[in-house]
Amino acid sequence: MDAGAGTSDEELDPRVERSRRLVLSATFALLSEVGYGGVTVEAVAARAGVAKSTIYRHWSGRPALIEAAIRANKPPAIDATGGTRREQVLAQVQGVARFVASSTWAACMPALFEAAQRDPEVASLLDSISTGQRAAMADLLRLAQEAGEVDPGADVDLLVDTLVGPIFLRRLFSQRSFAPEEVVALVDQVVPAPR
Amino acid sequence: MDAGAGTSDEELDPRVERSRRLVLSATFALLSEVGYGGVTVEAVAARAGVAKSTIYRHWSGRPALIEAAIRANKPPAIDATGGTRREQVLAQVQGVARFVASSTWAACMPALFEAAQRDPEVASLLDSISTGQRAAMADLLRLAQEAGEVDPGADVDLLVDTLVGPIFLRRLFSQRSFAPEEVVALVDQVVPAPR
Repeated sequence: MDAGAGTSDEELDPRVERSRRLVLSATFALLSEVGYGGVTVEAVAARAGVAKSTIYRHWSGRPALIEAAIRANKPPAIDATGGTRREQVLAQVQGVARFVASSTWAACMPALFEAAQRDPEVASLLDSISTGQRAAMADLLRLAQEAGEVDPGADVDLLVDTLVGPIFLRRLFSQRSFAPEEVVALVDQVVPAPR
Repeated sequence: MDAGAGTSDEELDPRVERSRRLVLSATFALLSEVGYGGVTVEAVAARAGVAKSTIYRHWSGRPALIEAAIRANKPPAIDATGGTRREQVLAQVQGVARFVASSTWAACMPALFEAAQRDPEVASLLDSISTGQRAAMADLLRLAQEAGEVDPGADVDLLVDTLVGPIFLRRLFSQRSFAPEEVVALVDQVVPAPR
């Protein structure tokens, strides 16, 4: 699966590790700047300042390289601890909004969707990343339900999609992001505090 | 703005009109099949079976061509009449789900987001299309509020985003679509029927 995994010997060599990291960040930066169509082994080699042969030593080609770059740049887990369960949900949705507003990953999104459309390996990787992120939020919403802070009858998976869907939608269709107070309004509307 | 607009003389000539339509559908088909990076004037000419010079007679180049193709293939307005206002809202959301599940336009989405990321003209076109579609659904939700079928305190623009956001999110991240009964569950959860 992960064509980018080196042997354990290679992983112990800091120069090899450094050049791998350079190549993967160059790949990710190119994805965000020129899109899926623009990421070629040539362009990555030029950007990272390494020989094409160095890239081919680690990855079989463009698809494996793109897959490894996405894997190496997964969105961070959002720290949402403290406060009530509902406040933790809010913190997590605000984390998503900040992430979508600013990160290289978010700037890469169109390229990632494009890649997923063309390459089944990327599609399954993107699905597994998003499934993991959504599961974390669903767990938090279940705890909030148990604490009596969220309607116990609500379908939590659907709640997750209605909480984060609007954030991605605006970014993709209108290049706009949710301000922190807009996230509060969103969470208040989707997950009203129990009366 | 619309670099694809011909003179009125040209628009009256059915052969010219036919070749314009051929070129625009070839452009749109290519967007869905090979993505934004793969749509070149050469590729469109080959696909449509016309000379490159024919394309340059109507459009200044690749950006104008892509813009005209998006404009010519706007998603259709969804017919949602009859029934209660809430049933009309449901019909409209189901129309969006069907559209996202099956149309060429939906298969083009990653390419369109990619194009919007690279080209401000495409970005503003995509924004205006989506703004128009969302406004239609917001109007319907306002009527439903007036009819007492939807919580009068809800922010309708936010409701629209929470109704359609999940549908796009699933398609883009997981290549999955909403089945008709899942849309019912979504609408029931986001816009609960008044008790």
